[in-house]
Order: sequence, then structure tokens, then C-alpha cells
Amino acid sequence: MDEVKIIEIKKSVFADNEKDANALRQELKHRGVFLLNLMSAPGSGKTTTLVNTINRLKDKISIAVMEADIDGDVDAIRIKEATGVPSIQLHTGGMCHLDAEMTRQGLENLELSNVDLVILENVGNLVCPAEFDTGSSANAMILSVPEGDDKPLKYPLMFSVCDLVLVNKIDVMPYFDFDLERCKQNVKMRNPNAQVIPISAKTGEGIDQFANWILSQISVLKYNHL
Amino acid sequence: MDEVKIIEIKKSVFADNEKDANALRQELKHRGVFLLNLMSAPGSGKTTTLVNTINRLKDKISIAVMEADIDGDVDAIRIKEATGVPSIQLHTGGMCHLDAEMTRQGLENLELSNVDLVILENVGNLVCPAEFDTGSSANAMILSVPEGDDKPLKYPLMFSVCDLVLVNKIDVMPYFDFDLERCKQNVKMRNPNAQVIPISAKTGEGIDQFANWILSQISVLKYNHL
Repeated sequence: MDEVKIIEIKKSVFADNEKDANALRQELKHRGVFLLNLMSAPGSGKTTTLVNTINRLKDKISIAVMEADIDGDVDAIRIKEATGVPSIQLHTGGMCHLDAEMTRQGLENLELSNVDLVILENVGNLVCPAEFDTGSSANAMILSVPEGDDKPLKYPLMFSVCDLVLVNKIDVMPYFDFDLERCKQNVKMRNPNAQVIPISAKTGEGIDQFANWILSQISVLKYNHL
Repeated sequence: MDEVKIIEIKKSVFADNEKDANALRQELKHRGVFLLNLMSAPGSGKTTTLVNTINRLKDKISIAVMEADIDGDVDAIRIKEATGVPSIQLHTGGMCHLDAEMTRQGLENLELSNVDLVILENVGNLVCPAEFDTGSSANAMILSVPEGDDKPLKYPLMFSVCDLVLVNKIDVMPYFDFDLERCKQNVKMRNPNAQVIPISAKTGEGIDQFANWILSQISVLKYNHL
């Protein structure tokens, strides 16, 4: 089994996370690096989605991944083994989120000079990660079918800070009481600008659309930088 | 649709939550009230499990429910409509957990004089609720099959503080790569004393076993109190 670098993240000392996050976002923009902050509840399929998406993108762009977890390194190893892209594990020291300074500590352990896209897989949690701007270029979240279409009603902030909502595990929709239209309405209520893409990380449905969304976001970042 | 009481919980001012939690636990024991703190990730089926379990118990014991969420009141209304037991909604003011003082604020809004069992449905989150003792008599958590059998590896504290782990949605196990034995091993690694009960809140499988576990816990509490 591959070994991955495990970074023990220290608690941020910055009082003003918003300022720090904006500074990091600008810095990354100038370096031409698009940072995607991917959030979700535990077990929504973030890692499987990333593996499939990275495998469709890795010949077109250069990618690195940061896997944030309370403990363990299974996700970072899986990404590295299944995609071959650089992947590091961030341990949050029991904390339920990452802020901009903690994200920066992770980025310092990646070789960014030729990287177009860094994906931060945030801690599996629909509450805390939404409260802290990581300095990411965009926020995306995965809501999986078994979790239910009512989640935007219960976790309003998460849905309001996300530019993109991936509805995953649509292959098992027949076995659950999940209404995609009702889900979209609930998402729009929290965030009229959020885009919703139904996917199945297992069958691959919708992954091309997600990959294209990422490519277009990167184009906009690089174009605006020129 | 029924209306439910919504309590806006204030942030705790107590510095020593552990002390406060132990005091609340003793207080409840003297009153003969068993407080079950039920935790899980979002969408694991906590509310459906509660509805089924309460309907099997409500003729034997007197039950009240506190539903904690960041926002919304759908769960408290559903419990009240589907079971008829008193149910209130606690709003955590954006916070990702409840501590003992916040739990006490909720309990003060229930009529406890004849109640045997209070169920606290904690915020859907596998990180923060595990870090704060609510003063409960016991902790239980639900891990649902679609979340994966590796969750004890990623959320160690949650599994180590729980007396009981319910593995829910076992009716959809054929559609997911979930190994019940591997799951049990992962749970035992974090907490050798935790009991594991596989259930399906949808089909009712295992719910009797969960209901009996609750009844035996209440007997022990009441017997020890006499």
C-alpha cells in the first residue's frame, strides 16, 4: 500500500479568518491555482466522486489533493493509489473544520508550481466547515440520496455558501424516498445561484458534467488573471 | 399540521461542562428520568428510527422528545404527528452540538413529572456532539449502511463515547459495499464495550431489540435509584 504524507494541522492563530481567506484566495489566483473546497456529510461519497472525476481530468490539467480528517489516512491513500495524483492527509487535531490558515498549512506541503487544481476534501460535516472560509476559489458540496431531500432545510448555511451541489448516489434513488425536484427547490430556496448536478460516482453518471464545471471554473480563473 | 414549541437555545456560560453534565445526570437519575442522547451523521434515519421505536414503547413507558437542529422544525412536528408524544424543537443558534447547560434549557421546557424517557435527537454531525457530554444517561448513535463501514476509523471519538451503535438501513445492504462484520470490528476497535444492533427503520427489523435495550436501561436506572 502506498504511503502518504500526513500533516498534523495546528489550530489557527488568526483572529480574522475572513481577511486571511481573501488574502489566500488572491494569492492562489495570482499563481493560477484553483482551490476547490469540497464538503459533505460523512459517507456521501466524496472520495469515490473525486477518484472518478480526477481520472477524467488528470490528462488535461495538473491536480493535487488534500484530504482533511480527524484521524486516519485511508482517503489520501485511496486517491493516490486510484488516480496517481499527489495526495496528502491533513489531520485536524479533533477539529470539525478547516479555516484559511489551516488550509494554508496544507498547501505548504504541496508542490504547487505547475498545479492547476487543488481539491480540498473537507471534514465530513454539514455544520462547521460551512462557517469557515478556507480561502477556496469555489465551494462545492455533495448531498447523497440516502441522506434525504430535506437537508437544505436543516443545514441552511452549508447550502448557502456552495456554488455547486452534487446530488450523489442517484443510482439508488428507486430504493429511497428522495424527490430530485423537491431537493432542487430546497437548494434554490437557500441559494438561488447554486448549480445542482445529479451524479452517481458508482456508475459515472453526471461525472463528465462535474468535470466540465471544474474546467470552466479554472478557465475563468486563469483568464481573469491574464 | 401540528405546531411544536421551538426553543432558541442560548450558548452555555458554564466553563466546566463535565461537572455540569455529571450534575444533570445525577439530577435526572433522582427524578427517575432516563435521558438518551441519540447522535448520527445527517440523514442516517434518526427520526424514522425514533418514530418506530416510540410507537413500540409508548404504551409501556412515558416518553418525551427534544429535537435539536440548526434550523427548521420538521423533525419535532413529525415525531409529534406520528407518535403523539410531547416533542419540542431546540434551535442551537448555528452551533454544531449541545452541551449539558443547553440540554438543561431544553428539559426545562418539558413536563417531566411522569416521564420515564427523554430522547434527545442531537444535531446531525459525527464530530462536535461527541466532544460535549450532554448529561445524558446513555449515548447511542446511528450509522447507516450508505455511509460505509469505515466510519469508526474516521470519527473515533463518536464511536468511543457511545454505549450503543445502531446500524440502520440494512434493507439496502445489497446495493452498497457494506460489510457488517467489518463494521462491527471497526466499532469494537474504538469501543470494546459498545453494543451493535443492526436495524431497518423502514422495515422494522431490529427495532424490537433497540426498544428492549432502552427498557432494560431504564430498569437499571430506576432500580439503582430505589
